[in-house]
Amino acid sequence: MKAQHKANAADNTKYQAAAWFRQLQTDICARFESLEDQSTNTDQESGRFVRKPWQKDAHDQLKGGGTMAIMKGRVFEKVGVNVSEVWGTFSEEFRKQIPGAEASGGTFWASGISLVAHLCSPLVPAVHMNTRMIVTSKSWFGGGADLTPMIPDDQDTADFHAALKACCDRHNPAYYKEYKEWCDRYFYLPHRNEPRGVGGIFYDYLDSGDWDADFAFTRDVGLSFATIYTDLVKRSMHKPWTVAQREQQLIKRGRYVEFNLLYDRGTQFGLKTGGNTEAILMSLPPEARWP
Amino acid sequence: MKAQHKANAADNTKYQAAAWFRQLQTDICARFESLEDQSTNTDQESGRFVRKPWQKDAHDQLKGGGTMAIMKGRVFEKVGVNVSEVWGTFSEEFRKQIPGAEASGGTFWASGISLVAHLCSPLVPAVHMNTRMIVTSKSWFGGGADLTPMIPDDQDTADFHAALKACCDRHNPAYYKEYKEWCDRYFYLPHRNEPRGVGGIFYDYLDSGDWDADFAFTRDVGLSFATIYTDLVKRSMHKPWTVAQREQQLIKRGRYVEFNLLYDRGTQFGLKTGGNTEAILMSLPPEARWP
Repeated sequence: MKAQHKANAADNTKYQAAAWFRQLQTDICARFESLEDQSTNTDQESGRFVRKPWQKDAHDQLKGGGTMAIMKGRVFEKVGVNVSEVWGTFSEEFRKQIPGAEASGGTFWASGISLVAHLCSPLVPAVHMNTRMIVTSKSWFGGGADLTPMIPDDQDTADFHAALKACCDRHNPAYYKEYKEWCDRYFYLPHRNEPRGVGGIFYDYLDSGDWDADFAFTRDVGLSFATIYTDLVKRSMHKPWTVAQREQQLIKRGRYVEFNLLYDRGTQFGLKTGGNTEAILMSLPPEARWP
Repeated sequence: MKAQHKANAADNTKYQAAAWFRQLQTDICARFESLEDQSTNTDQESGRFVRKPWQKDAHDQLKGGGTMAIMKGRVFEKVGVNVSEVWGTFSEEFRKQIPGAEASGGTFWASGISLVAHLCSPLVPAVHMNTRMIVTSKSWFGGGADLTPMIPDDQDTADFHAALKACCDRHNPAYYKEYKEWCDRYFYLPHRNEPRGVGGIFYDYLDSGDWDADFAFTRDVGLSFATIYTDLVKRSMHKPWTVAQREQQLIKRGRYVEFNLLYDRGTQFGLKTGGNTEAILMSLPPEARWP
């Protein structure tokens, strides 16, 4: 009876988390479509998200599926907002790297939302946000949000960090410092000796013992991101930019590609566990240059 | 005396190999500049290689240096022909993966030539060629050449393979089959279930016991490549192409980036052993798209 109760409780947390990620996807897509409507660029139509559901086949080792939502618009050159809920068994080799995966016999469940936006204007920063819940014999949340300006703007950077700090502080006064530093360490290109962008927060293996509190924090990260990033886009989307700034943007995007393919754990995790390649590589920019 | 004799002999093979790679660089650059001169596109000037020598600092763990030669022209949108000669000590972790590196206490010497060409015209295939000599407690040659058409052309593919087969057959009747298959296995994107291009040859750990013969084969691979590829460029460089073909080219180049950053051993080897990032990532295309 006790084991059954525990299993039901675990199923309930999975259900709540997966439902939240789907809801956040809907919310963010609506906000971004509204930004498209506010553009004064009449040469192009206001963009709309195209949703593409996908499911693993019954015989695949990885089960589950998700929905990609991709928009190519006049403000957002390419933005993907993906949700997924998958489960299966890690390979012998891979399970050593994942907490609780040896004790679970390799079985895992994962659900999350992943967002990457590449903007038309080089004056509007690119952005990445991801939150997820993972269950093996343990259960935890992870995620974060980080900003990659093409041409850094001190006010944008300060406001983005302030919004994430306020979010963290609402839940635990220790979070912001720790998660900001983690972000700076993580989004770094050692072969270039340069950070990917101007940072944000990054957290993982969050299991404070209070699932409700951890889930509330994860929801707040998503909403805080959506609010501040929408503000930053609005602030700069109408500013005129030059061909030289566009060239700078395309080169910076090349660095983004380097990070995602050489170092990003989510990309490696996804490709190594038989995830949906199209969804995983949605993060790559529509156009990039290595002149 | 015997050990000294052996050391001198090893130094002599290193000297010969490194000198050959430099000579091949000069030869290929001249051939490619000649193709630039033969272009009838008068909107742009005929391209010329810009040579950039580099050297590791005295305090770096990796010693040595090389010369990058890069040309951005009207036939070659971006082509890099790099030579290098480096030596140092592999990390404890890395030496397990390299033959003879544990017995050498991790010390190694490596010299090679590496070439990647991205063409202006989507009707001219991209190409990669690399040959190298590596010394640990063992010594061997490796390398190969492979073709990546943007829009496959059966005649180009057949002629490229025929030239490499003729080269292989001049040295060992078993080489072509083995090295062609190795190439097909190696230049493959599992996450896309697609090959990088149409193949060619790939060989590694070549130590037949006859250094002169192995060196002669390696020289022949370089020259055979230079001859057939120059012919292929000449064949198609004047053909008109469409905007749709250019778009197809930029997408195919995105796959090239994926392969090089996710899987290429040379890239991983170079970045992990403290190589020259600019030289290693010279292989990335001037422009790529993930629409």
